Amino acid sequence: MTTGNASILDGNSFKAADAAALDDRRRALVERRQHRLGAAYRLFYRDPVELVRGRGAHAWDADGNEYLDLYNNVPSVGHAHPAVVDAVHRQMSLLNTHTRYLHGAVLDYADDLVSTMPAALEQVMFVCTGSEANDLALRVGREYTGGRAWIATSEAYHGNTALVSAHSPSLSGAEAMDPALRVVDPPDTYRYVSSEAAGAAFSAAVAEAIADIERSGDGLAGLIADSSFSSDGIYTGERGMIADAVDLVHAHGGVFVADEVQPGFARTGEDFWGFQRHGLVPDIVTTGKPMGNGFPIAAMIARREVLEPFSTARPYFNTFGGNPVAIAAAQAVLDTIRGEGLQAHALEMGEAMRTALRDLADAHPRIGDVRGAGLYTGLELVEDRETKAPDTALALAVLEELRERRVLTSVCGPSNSVLKLRPPLAISAADVPRLVDALDDSLTALGA
Amino acid sequence: MTTGNASILDGNSFKAADAAALDDRRRALVERRQHRLGAAYRLFYRDPVELVRGRGAHAWDADGNEYLDLYNNVPSVGHAHPAVVDAVHRQMSLLNTHTRYLHGAVLDYADDLVSTMPAALEQVMFVCTGSEANDLALRVGREYTGGRAWIATSEAYHGNTALVSAHSPSLSGAEAMDPALRVVDPPDTYRYVSSEAAGAAFSAAVAEAIADIERSGDGLAGLIADSSFSSDGIYTGERGMIADAVDLVHAHGGVFVADEVQPGFARTGEDFWGFQRHGLVPDIVTTGKPMGNGFPIAAMIARREVLEPFSTARPYFNTFGGNPVAIAAAQAVLDTIRGEGLQAHALEMGEAMRTALRDLADAHPRIGDVRGAGLYTGLELVEDRETKAPDTALALAVLEELRERRVLTSVCGPSNSVLKLRPPLAISAADVPRLVDALDDSLTALGA
Repeated sequence: MTTGNASILDGNSFKAADAAALDDRRRALVERRQHRLGAAYRLFYRDPVELVRGRGAHAWDADGNEYLDLYNNVPSVGHAHPAVVDAVHRQMSLLNTHTRYLHGAVLDYADDLVSTMPAALEQVMFVCTGSEANDLALRVGREYTGGRAWIATSEAYHGNTALVSAHSPSLSGAEAMDPALRVVDPPDTYRYVSSEAAGAAFSAAVAEAIADIERSGDGLAGLIADSSFSSDGIYTGERGMIADAVDLVHAHGGVFVADEVQPGFARTGEDFWGFQRHGLVPDIVTTGKPMGNGFPIAAMIARREVLEPFSTARPYFNTFGGNPVAIAAAQAVLDTIRGEGLQAHALEMGEAMRTALRDLADAHPRIGDVRGAGLYTGLELVEDRETKAPDTALALAVLEELRERRVLTSVCGPSNSVLKLRPPLAISAADVPRLVDALDDSLTALGA
Repeated sequence: MTTGNASILDGNSFKAADAAALDDRRRALVERRQHRLGAAYRLFYRDPVELVRGRGAHAWDADGNEYLDLYNNVPSVGHAHPAVVDAVHRQMSLLNTHTRYLHGAVLDYADDLVSTMPAALEQVMFVCTGSEANDLALRVGREYTGGRAWIATSEAYHGNTALVSAHSPSLSGAEAMDPALRVVDPPDTYRYVSSEAAGAAFSAAVAEAIADIERSGDGLAGLIADSSFSSDGIYTGERGMIADAVDLVHAHGGVFVADEVQPGFARTGEDFWGFQRHGLVPDIVTTGKPMGNGFPIAAMIARREVLEPFSTARPYFNTFGGNPVAIAAAQAVLDTIRGEGLQAHALEMGEAMRTALRDLADAHPRIGDVRGAGLYTGLELVEDRETKAPDTALALAVLEELRERRVLTSVCGPSNSVLKLRPPLAISAADVPRLVDALDDSLTALGA
């Protein structure tokens, strides 16, 4: 059984037993949650935060305390960005209906969205969540290839529907995996000697999985991966790192599904999409979280010939998918990323952040690695730099210390030893030293 | 292969060949759709409607023509209802985040939602779509019972994820059904001599399915049904009609999932939930479409002991599910239903509509049946009243004639012979004669 991915699964340092230590207001909220929503609902932090307001990369709790948000990629262009708020308000005041009637805006947005991608990615289907997008992608890929078996990485999380959960190895302790799923290790750029070596190991693992699938007769559907390997521990690597592995999948008749729910929409700074860092042309791209800045909208974008066997065989209707209000939100996000130059900003801020964190590492030997691209940074905490043994306890303790210093983040990776620094793109230069100081203080307070 | 359910699946009288007949503007939109969204996207009508604005139960197209909307249950309290628009705007301007932080509003709404249900339904999980709610419900039911086999009705449509599609027999021409699924005929209150006889036949079919499941060793998970049997042709029946069938499921250790995506939120007028018409206490209730008046929000509500095996075994996280903006929309809907007395209004308007339509049937013998509850009415067109043979061609032609008279609706049932009259609850008394006149004219124009 995996320990689970803290950022997605456990959350969550809060345990029921901690409730007694909370103030009356929060204790009451926690108890009401447990009673009404049940045990599947987890909370971040021993001392959970009650956020009531946000702006840019900052948020405020019910007592008026201000926090630096280094975790939330959903409000991608900034909490409560007025351009998105206004666009949704304007369209909601007019009409919110479905795609069985004509509406120009959904087509304008779809054109705009595919214009950011390689030309081969021509068709778009709109859904409401990244889970729905991946559920659809897995079926489209199976129908096109005739194969059943997908390859995914060992701590991957692709969403919460039955099919997608069964292809999310990070859930393997709680959920039965699809019998045809093959699991491969991600390209661990920290533990291999180089990004090149990590990529080669990844290719070798994919080759082995393909051979196993071919022997079994399951038939290869393809590889589904987040090119930043977010849940696996954030391995952005050098540009091109995973190109050979994807070539292998294609050579054996499989498709590549780029799960861009995390790296997409300019987060990596270098490119608009994470897969572009590796020079790839995916067969299917899925998007989610940041697409509508919190408004539920997601999409699956596919090559025409890959989608066709699925789409000509059946109607597919998603009641809320691609509705004019969701589209208004998504269009405002795309316009804001461009209008505010957020891709270049993500590159600049991300590099400043990693430079500053690497400087900090000089004073704190338990910082084993600082890695990432644009505003997606992983900072791995280790027992010592020689063995690179992950230090889960320290990472979880740092999380709590940062929370006390009003910096919000979480952890990822197979041992939950990697701080996941993934702020709204609207973070400002002044926020970087604030993070660094808070982390410095936190590590010092923990004697690390 | 089923002919498919027009309202959910085909839609859809529009065929690619029809595009030549459209004006330039709409032809361009249709061609862009086909190119960019692909073949899975279907349109209503030979001459598709481009809606741009809505208010109450009325909508306007791009040329300024006004329509009476008798189809859309998503904008349940009325298109662009200002209470929902304002609530969403207010909360979006403050904060939109997820359920890993504390927020009081999600708990207030969850308390309010369960207060409308039998006391045994205590716990709520929030998702974004009815499909996600049903996907979760099928897994929760399986985990609780240890059984794999669900029973569903022959034209049921429960959503679009892989698992839910495999339990939607209306898709059986295009999708493989779950190997353990058992399909039963719905209680056809028109073709049986009475509602009581239809209910007895339904119980017998369920009993047979249970016996088959027990013989096979698949293990009974339960029955999933929409108590208004919307896609099956709208069989609301007499109160209590399906109570025996549900008792049987319970007696054999199965659970009953009430799919309230269509009948819920006061639509049937008599009760707030469709299952209440039959005096049932479901083990799981799922909601969707009307919950946020178009804002993507849905929920699964369950008995504590039914949910517990699932929720204690795993975290379940839905990024957008239960976010404060979705909750603001849902709370505004609930408040508006109460504040405007829409449940009583649905009862009154629905009865007025069916009375007027039954009067109209005196002049049009191809109207075989007018049935329903509250603002959910099915009007079945037949070849003649003796044989009750469904008249698909006439129903589809009436749909187009109504569209020309600017009344929007669709069809349902195994033969697409049932006009589905399911307007926003905000319909007014003046809209009833407008429907009746338009239908009178349409049938007369068609020589029926």
